[in-house]
Amino acid sequence: MTTSVTAYAAPAPKAPLERTTIERRPVGEHDILIEIAYAGICHSDIHQAREEWGSALFPMVPGHEIAGIVTEVGSGVTKYAVGDRVGVGCFVDSCRECENCLAGDEQYCLKGEVATYNGKAYDGSPTYGGYSTHIVVDENYAVRIPDGLSLDVAAPLLCAGITLYSPLDHWNAGPGKKVAIVGLGGLGHMGVKIAHAMGAEVTVLSQSLRKKDDGLRLGADRFYATSDESTFAELAGTFDLIINTVSANIPLDAYLSLLKREGTMVHVGGPEFPSSFNQFSLIMGRKSMAGSKIGGIRQTQEMLDFCARHGFGAEIEVITADRINEAYERVVSSDVRYRFVIDIASLKG
Amino acid sequence: MTTSVTAYAAPAPKAPLERTTIERRPVGEHDILIEIAYAGICHSDIHQAREEWGSALFPMVPGHEIAGIVTEVGSGVTKYAVGDRVGVGCFVDSCRECENCLAGDEQYCLKGEVATYNGKAYDGSPTYGGYSTHIVVDENYAVRIPDGLSLDVAAPLLCAGITLYSPLDHWNAGPGKKVAIVGLGGLGHMGVKIAHAMGAEVTVLSQSLRKKDDGLRLGADRFYATSDESTFAELAGTFDLIINTVSANIPLDAYLSLLKREGTMVHVGGPEFPSSFNQFSLIMGRKSMAGSKIGGIRQTQEMLDFCARHGFGAEIEVITADRINEAYERVVSSDVRYRFVIDIASLKG
Repeated sequence: MTTSVTAYAAPAPKAPLERTTIERRPVGEHDILIEIAYAGICHSDIHQAREEWGSALFPMVPGHEIAGIVTEVGSGVTKYAVGDRVGVGCFVDSCRECENCLAGDEQYCLKGEVATYNGKAYDGSPTYGGYSTHIVVDENYAVRIPDGLSLDVAAPLLCAGITLYSPLDHWNAGPGKKVAIVGLGGLGHMGVKIAHAMGAEVTVLSQSLRKKDDGLRLGADRFYATSDESTFAELAGTFDLIINTVSANIPLDAYLSLLKREGTMVHVGGPEFPSSFNQFSLIMGRKSMAGSKIGGIRQTQEMLDFCARHGFGAEIEVITADRINEAYERVVSSDVRYRFVIDIASLKG
Repeated sequence: MTTSVTAYAAPAPKAPLERTTIERRPVGEHDILIEIAYAGICHSDIHQAREEWGSALFPMVPGHEIAGIVTEVGSGVTKYAVGDRVGVGCFVDSCRECENCLAGDEQYCLKGEVATYNGKAYDGSPTYGGYSTHIVVDENYAVRIPDGLSLDVAAPLLCAGITLYSPLDHWNAGPGKKVAIVGLGGLGHMGVKIAHAMGAEVTVLSQSLRKKDDGLRLGADRFYATSDESTFAELAGTFDLIINTVSANIPLDAYLSLLKREGTMVHVGGPEFPSSFNQFSLIMGRKSMAGSKIGGIRQTQEMLDFCARHGFGAEIEVITADRINEAYERVVSSDVRYRFVIDIASLKG
């Protein structure tokens, strides 16, 4: 039997989110029921709720940065027990059989992983995200939140954290490596923290110097304004790795000129429109452009453990659920340092 | 004292090449004098002689696929002796001090390596290429042509061969790897031979099936026409590595869809105009686009030894010098299988 739970949902594209009730599936043999404590607001929640990324499913309960407590477990569950602190990220199932799933890269599932919201489970039922009091997920698609991490600052790690950790880890950010983070928003601020904790020399490339103090406080060694053309001359040939967190079109050739020989620029987001570049920007120096999408379950757990070991979560502003629509406006105008997190207790009143 | 040697030169942009006389520098302490036997015609010779790649230096003696015999050595030369069979590729000097030179990647010299022609030596004197009877080069910028390789089929290896060998080696083409070569011309045909010899499974992606028999004979396992849209559906998610040898704009997103997770598409040439792609084509599968430019001296030697060990050079059509202009027209219309090589003996008459 399904269970009715309170949620905040967009009833239709571009409509304000409002309090509603949704049904959660019964706790199956391998499922856990999570009482959600906090849910982060990711910019992609807004894109989807406003149907800016193509056809979407409504009503939509966004939220894929979920932190909470296990309150019930299925009969076959072995990984979690009632009372455990857990998180759920951007997907809640995958085929488990393709070469990417078998490699632990479920985010690249060839059948298509099941999105935490605005998706359909393999049985065809719609998925609803973390702006709700409870969620039921297969135990294999949850991760453990280490004791050292508060649930509120942990929530954004489930998307923003892993989105940056995965490429930084994959492209070997660490001691002796010069890493640039383009954009200091929800994603970028996690990139600075993580790359710094990995031991890399971290440079922030931001439009202006407005957030310079923050950047340095978060762990950046250097901070440059990309609106200042001398930045590109000064930093030519500097970086081993550039992580681009900006979702607008940026002048790629200019950024590629900042890479050393064999350096890599990794896009973790992308603009709606095609990007243009000159192939010679890659040829002259055996450079690469790559892309990276969140991370697999195993790596997400590794990231949480890494953050706990280094004693940090995200920088957050906690809000009550009735402020979600206002928060959306502020995210769109980049007026948040650096992630809104919804206190789900406020939904229960 | 300089020495006058016969050459074929373009006196001005877009003018036909004609027989002329140029001066070669005296054989210095670390120089070798090479009597050139064969010089390959690379498409970039034509681009430069026609000033299609920006401002060029005239008169221009093209030719950076040079094979010949050492006929004199400077007093300090230790690597070569009179009678040795040697080759010269795309550059004849580099700073020898920057991190790229020290790593053996002189082709990415941070000071700028000295191009074999249409360049200036560090003393400011113009450089002249292989369409000539002799060339004087520093012994460190020549490579040894193994006994098993004829000089005529070896010549094109100095540019076309290394341009393909370098990325195939760098991105680990070999047994178990699926490699696609886009375009079956002067570069592409070497890609097929080398990737096959490395043990990879090789697929040619060509505009039509016109060269299919050749492709299979050269070592391809599969051959597809890119003008057939079903090719892209059939090969989706197939390749570990795609080497793009086409110098026109191609639909990058379509090609990127042919890569497996973590696959790489490497451009070894490029169009005059910017290329466009969707960043999500990289993000969905942690894919990369990269570029690669010829190779360093050490790797060029390695490539020649590899080709000799596997018993192949380039597929060539040997011409006399008086047919260079005609050959240029045929290269532009892709009417060559697969490389013109000038018999320099014909210049001496």
